[in-house]
Amino acid sequence: MKPVNHVKVQPDMKINDLILQMKEGAGFGARRLAEAVDIFESMIKDQDTTIFLTLAGALIPGGMRNIIAEFIKNNYIDVLITTGAILTHDLVEAFGFRHYHGRADLNDEELQDKGLNRIYNILLPNEAYIGLEKRITKILGTINLESVSTRKFLYELGKLLDDKNSIIKVAADYNVPIFCPAISDSVLGYHIWSYSQLRKVPIDVLKEHKEIVDIAFESPKKGALICGGGVPKHFVALAMQVTGKGLNYAIQITMDRPEPGGVSGASLQEAVSWNKADKAAKKDDVICDITIALPIILASLMTRLKNYQRKRKIFEFYE
Amino acid sequence: MKPVNHVKVQPDMKINDLILQMKEGAGFGARRLAEAVDIFESMIKDQDTTIFLTLAGALIPGGMRNIIAEFIKNNYIDVLITTGAILTHDLVEAFGFRHYHGRADLNDEELQDKGLNRIYNILLPNEAYIGLEKRITKILGTINLESVSTRKFLYELGKLLDDKNSIIKVAADYNVPIFCPAISDSVLGYHIWSYSQLRKVPIDVLKEHKEIVDIAFESPKKGALICGGGVPKHFVALAMQVTGKGLNYAIQITMDRPEPGGVSGASLQEAVSWNKADKAAKKDDVICDITIALPIILASLMTRLKNYQRKRKIFEFYE
Amino acid sequence: MKPVNHVKVQPDMKINDLILQMKEGAGFGARRLAEAVDIFESMIKDQDTTIFLTLAGALIPGGMRNIIAEFIKNNYIDVLITTGAILTHDLVEAFGFRHYHGRADLNDEELQDKGLNRIYNILLPNEAYIGLEKRITKILGTINLESVSTRKFLYELGKLLDDKNSIIKVAADYNVPIFCPAISDSVLGYHIWSYSQLRKVPIDVLKEHKEIVDIAFESPKKGALICGGGVPKHFVALAMQVTGKGLNYAIQITMDRPEPGGVSGASLQEAVSWNKADKAAKKDDVICDITIALPIILASLMTRLKNYQRKRKIFEFYE
Amino acid sequence: MKPVNHVKVQPDMKINDLILQMKEGAGFGARRLAEAVDIFESMIKDQDTTIFLTLAGALIPGGMRNIIAEFIKNNYIDVLITTGAILTHDLVEAFGFRHYHGRADLNDEELQDKGLNRIYNILLPNEAYIGLEKRITKILGTINLESVSTRKFLYELGKLLDDKNSIIKVAADYNVPIFCPAISDSVLGYHIWSYSQLRKVPIDVLKEHKEIVDIAFESPKKGALICGGGVPKHFVALAMQVTGKGLNYAIQITMDRPEPGGVSGASLQEAVSWNKADKAAKKDDVICDITIALPIILASLMTRLKNYQRKRKIFEFYE
Repeated sequence: MKPVNHVKVQPDMKINDLILQMKEGAGFGARRLAEAVDIFESMIKDQDTTIFLTLAGALIPGGMRNIIAEFIKNNYIDVLITTGAILTHDLVEAFGFRHYHGRADLNDEELQDKGLNRIYNILLPNEAYIGLEKRITKILGTINLESVSTRKFLYELGKLLDDKNSIIKVAADYNVPIFCPAISDSVLGYHIWSYSQLRKVPIDVLKEHKEIVDIAFESPKKGALICGGGVPKHFVALAMQVTGKGLNYAIQITMDRPEPGGVSGASLQEAVSWNKADKAAKKDDVICDITIALPIILASLMTRLKNYQRKRKIFEFYE
Repeated sequence: MKPVNHVKVQPDMKINDLILQMKEGAGFGARRLAEAVDIFESMIKDQDTTIFLTLAGALIPGGMRNIIAEFIKNNYIDVLITTGAILTHDLVEAFGFRHYHGRADLNDEELQDKGLNRIYNILLPNEAYIGLEKRITKILGTINLESVSTRKFLYELGKLLDDKNSIIKVAADYNVPIFCPAISDSVLGYHIWSYSQLRKVPIDVLKEHKEIVDIAFESPKKGALICGGGVPKHFVALAMQVTGKGLNYAIQITMDRPEPGGVSGASLQEAVSWNKADKAAKKDDVICDITIALPIILASLMTRLKNYQRKRKIFEFYE
Repeated sequence: MKPVNHVKVQPDMKINDLILQMKEGAGFGARRLAEAVDIFESMIKDQDTTIFLTLAGALIPGGMRNIIAEFIKNNYIDVLITTGAILTHDLVEAFGFRHYHGRADLNDEELQDKGLNRIYNILLPNEAYIGLEKRITKILGTINLESVSTRKFLYELGKLLDDKNSIIKVAADYNVPIFCPAISDSVLGYHIWSYSQLRKVPIDVLKEHKEIVDIAFESPKKGALICGGGVPKHFVALAMQVTGKGLNYAIQITMDRPEPGGVSGASLQEAVSWNKADKAAKKDDVICDITIALPIILASLMTRLKNYQRKRKIFEFYE
Repeated sequence: MKPVNHVKVQPDMKINDLILQMKEGAGFGARRLAEAVDIFESMIKDQDTTIFLTLAGALIPGGMRNIIAEFIKNNYIDVLITTGAILTHDLVEAFGFRHYHGRADLNDEELQDKGLNRIYNILLPNEAYIGLEKRITKILGTINLESVSTRKFLYELGKLLDDKNSIIKVAADYNVPIFCPAISDSVLGYHIWSYSQLRKVPIDVLKEHKEIVDIAFESPKKGALICGGGVPKHFVALAMQVTGKGLNYAIQITMDRPEPGGVSGASLQEAVSWNKADKAAKKDDVICDITIALPIILASLMTRLKNYQRKRKIFEFYE
């Protein structure tokens, strides 16, 4: 048995050094956070592994836009699975609008009058949505697609964006597919529907199944960093379930609880029974706010891997 | 100021009598649970109000199938918004398979070997999924639809089911529309995709937007019981947002927290800033396991309304 | 394997009938709530069992005063372990003051000006504390004790109270010992200290150890209903630990999480490693607001046991 | 309004640089964590401020022993308020025993057989408790105290310890008083009681009231870092309440929720109504595992204050 060494910190300490301290020195949440970095490092160095990043929650209002983009730019992930809200928030910023610092106890009736939409302690002005409508409608008019997968649609959309910080654009530039099974449930989805009233329907969400299942079949090993639960977590798990071979590496960061039975709070251990995670999988549940844990994990990885270049998996899609 | 009267209980006490005690007698969660019943009763008696029920989480493995069906049969709701997993679990039972009692600490590696999939303390055998595939494939072969809304598809599907306890069937029989924006992200969605490889694509999830937006516009007032968060919560809120008029009544039951910023844990108060809830809305966040709170709310409503017949709202859809 | 039967409810349904439905019909929190009633019923009918009730949290502001008193009056418990705050809140009400309904989003700066102290959605006026000081000082002047256990002190205090709804008085009347290891950390404790400036120190908290350890040794079996965590939960567990024989029945109701490692959120399963719970113990963690779960458990027990009279354990103390 | 800038990270990034990024760049938990550092820095530089550190939870099994000691050694705190369990765990290590890394899903029945006590994912062997009993009994025999405050007792105890990493010893060496109102509720408290069977009672917990109240009265301003809730949080708040002047700075780190009404999860905003926190107080609730947040806060402070020497407040006690 290894003793708990107790975490030591110093002035000017680096993040990765703290994580190394937490691995040997701490229990509870700190050790799990440290193990997340180790598991991610392992799956990066295991060249057979295709790495999925799933995103749910208000991560862009929460300030994680660059962090997510860096996971792509550093070749730390191969596939992105996300919600329509995250795509919408990314577009809002891509079109020049911003999220703003607020407080959780602001008066919501007054905010409504001022046209400020609150996301816990963050604010998004109505004008962002008005701007989004104008810009996305214009862009959609230039996309000539019919019933393609959301992955294909988002790739084409990304190619048309100018903002080099946009996750959608970065993913397109780096050829990282984005899946968004619930794209319809978002302001973006609503505008796609509006557009489809006059033109052909650009997307067929069902087509994502073939694409993610092909990825799962083609990948000797699979790993996932699951940020938040919801549809993105469920969708990667579903791909494992239907292909009959579970994740070899799995990390989830969530504040949801397992006891009420929902998929968002479900433990990765539970995933083993479904073969959504392999019996021998390295697994780690980090119970933490994603805005705290995710930058720490990324900074630690960038430190450990600064002289290591991972080769990203490239998948061919037939449309 | 009203004093806290302290809850009193007796042998053979009725659920609604406890709720009445909790209203005057308790604080914290108990008072919020009691207020949920009051708000639901108010919106039932406010005949201008269209009532939405949103469902997320493993509610059918959790034993809530009859409870949900009774909300429909009693005309307590007009519109259902749900996840693909809930539809899948409903079909599994409609086709004669069952969920089983287990424990949260069972060995998941052994469960995998036995073909038993764990959902916290509930088990679902693999054979249910095998059976589902057979049956749904057969049914899909008899549905001759092309690019209809999920609502329309689920209505036709419900008409073809035999199990009188099926939520999908009961909803069809009672003409309660079911929306499922993320249907693709489910085993059901996967089978719809498989089917669409050979036949026409039966569904176009985008079409739900028109239908729910029409409902929102046609409804003088709107209320919602939000069970769990996720896409169903977000989708009803989105319909309010794009139509510019918030919910007049809103109850949510969740164990998620607001602080990490995700929509599932977001307070109903926050919804006011977005005009997803009206400034004057009656609102109530119940922080409780849905399997505990939902049957209590229903039993209390059935007691209070046993001599009251609500007229359900019927909406016309143009396909 | 037993199938999940799905909960059924009817108008005028009784609480215990719902609990019976939840036992067979539900998973997740509902089943655990139902199991709590079964385990409590078992330990009541197991005549070898001494039953501890531990209380932490603002249960009296939350309206649980009668509920707790009824556990005593029905002979459902033998020993009470509580916090100083619960005793303080009980005295506040015993002296004629009340807690009031408020809201969680009231302006706390204004409440401070108005002399209203907020406990989430409940308010307690400053005058209650002023009144408490006057009355308790007077009563303490009539108690002629020196360095007795808190149990003895609270027994004598209870005998001097008039309010028949007071938990302290009911416990004294029914000869149910109250332990309060952290009594010093409360307004009551502060007043005992003030009093001890002029007179002898009435209490010696250490003496509780002998008394609870004696109870543990004398009891062939032991059970506990643990409401909230904190010192009361820890103290009963400590008595088990030092006597080397764990609880045979254990139920806890809490909203705290296990992952951060604190005792309040720790699972009852973990207690087995310490022999704080017996290997063969019937155990049940109910993740629920106590104000919801506790009245339901009591009402169900009163229904099941209306023709059953449990004999309370009486312990001799040598001072 | 300030825009959310999005957090940027680099290889070899320092912890404080990440915190600075989180302040401007993030919302939700990350911003709150960053604000905690700012508030702590402010109260350190506000020389009128007496700083309290309250500790609850299994922080020493969790690896926070050096972190806590460093808060003392760096003169970042003036007063420590803690639980008996934390003192017990500190003594266990001071006497040469260790906590060990385990897993949350180990078999607790087998652990019981092996004499390994589990604290979530940490293990403590029974031999530590046997060793503790021997050593503390011996030390108690050399302490000739009667009815002193726990603060005085812990000071004398600290002077007798050899382990330079012991929090109790470091606090004694640095003249930082430790209060422990619930000391009785711990293995240490149990041994003090055993000892008092033969000798005089060494401690009178009530006497802490005078000492902490004197500190509160003598301090022009007051600040607190509240780690976990329970008695330590309540005790510092109580001192504020009875002296009628609230905290000027307050940070809490907890995973408990506010909705069920318990003091551990209560927001610092609520404390304003009680005047436990001043209306103008700088306040910050960090919803995070303490083992993650506390080392980050300390490392950031040590970086910012490496050229700043805070003068610790020294209080005179009359025994």
